[in-house]
Amino acid sequence: MIAFLPLCSHPNPKTVLIVGGGDGGVAREVAKHPQVERIVQVEIDPKVLEVSKKYLPSMGVGLDHPKVTLNIGDGFQFLKQHSGQFDVIITDSSDPVGPAECLFQESYFNLMKSALKPDGIVCSQAGTAWLNLDHVTQTLQRCKSLFPVASYGVVSVPTYPTGQIGFVLGGLNPETNFKEPTKVFNDTELDQMNMKYYNDQVHRAAFILPRFITKALDKSLAKN
Amino acid sequence: MIAFLPLCSHPNPKTVLIVGGGDGGVAREVAKHPQVERIVQVEIDPKVLEVSKKYLPSMGVGLDHPKVTLNIGDGFQFLKQHSGQFDVIITDSSDPVGPAECLFQESYFNLMKSALKPDGIVCSQAGTAWLNLDHVTQTLQRCKSLFPVASYGVVSVPTYPTGQIGFVLGGLNPETNFKEPTKVFNDTELDQMNMKYYNDQVHRAAFILPRFITKALDKSLAKN
Repeated sequence: MIAFLPLCSHPNPKTVLIVGGGDGGVAREVAKHPQVERIVQVEIDPKVLEVSKKYLPSMGVGLDHPKVTLNIGDGFQFLKQHSGQFDVIITDSSDPVGPAECLFQESYFNLMKSALKPDGIVCSQAGTAWLNLDHVTQTLQRCKSLFPVASYGVVSVPTYPTGQIGFVLGGLNPETNFKEPTKVFNDTELDQMNMKYYNDQVHRAAFILPRFITKALDKSLAKN
Repeated sequence: MIAFLPLCSHPNPKTVLIVGGGDGGVAREVAKHPQVERIVQVEIDPKVLEVSKKYLPSMGVGLDHPKVTLNIGDGFQFLKQHSGQFDVIITDSSDPVGPAECLFQESYFNLMKSALKPDGIVCSQAGTAWLNLDHVTQTLQRCKSLFPVASYGVVSVPTYPTGQIGFVLGGLNPETNFKEPTKVFNDTELDQMNMKYYNDQVHRAAFILPRFITKALDKSLAKN
């Protein structure tokens, strides 16, 4: 979902950057999208890649996909050096407390923005509203202060605390509507892509949230 | 959601039976629906009522609502003695393993069916597909073997294992479409009812499931 929510919100996502995601799961999913030609991934910790390939081969396999170019390094530095190059940037980080905290700040969203091509889209792991609604609203606010459109969607992840994980999406094109996929794959196509979770209905439903969450998000966006 | 998914799928839910639900949370929510005139609740364990009122007063308050009549006893016996009396029957039980196992069997769904008025609807806690997809498909199959329409919906419950809980709904009227609410409350009405989670969009989205779950459920229903 962290892959196909942004990919299917973009009219032609040819070049994708993944920041983090060292387990390979995101690369594996992004590679399934037929319009994606090139995936660049930057992971700060080479050990994560090694351990995932060894112990999580079903995810690690994504790192070896022919569309993928792997880089070991700091996402901040990488973004600074690659201005205007990507249609979609996906940040698959750990939570906004501790080492990954910087990936939820405005400076990071600004760097992602500068690394996008026109009409580019960013999608960042943004935690769950059930644990910390303030973190979610703050991340969405930061994104919305830099992008004309921004939204927060969720997906069920039973192994994650509270069973849900959320994403903040931002887009440079004010016409982008994250809640309505630009590209709809039919069942046969989804089967061929081995998609177990995603379809266009699931895409739309990802943005339907409990009232108290919608209210908090709308309130935070109204401040911008 | 275990309250408003069935209530808003019924054209006029005047009389509601709650089986289990001793904490009072379901009664509290059912009582909010303006068309509901009478709520009958049957709970097997009086200690649950006592403990909930003492330690979970925000839920226990539902048990004291003027619309509610409390009965201590076995749901099976109660259903046998109350044929054709309810518009909606909600079963708020524990999981389908152990003492509550009988509440997931065909005999129980049959008793609920006989206790319904014409066009009546049942809604039962049915576990999460993330833990045991077979249990969910079996419960749905049992319901569908007795009711012309049946469906499975989910809700996020962060304190529940996997963060999600599901419900099987069955209806006597073949025209019932659980996925499209018969009654849509606007935001002002929902605020007045102090609804923090439910609205019509959330209702529809409850039935949008990951592909692998939808496929398993469709396959099980096709067997009937």
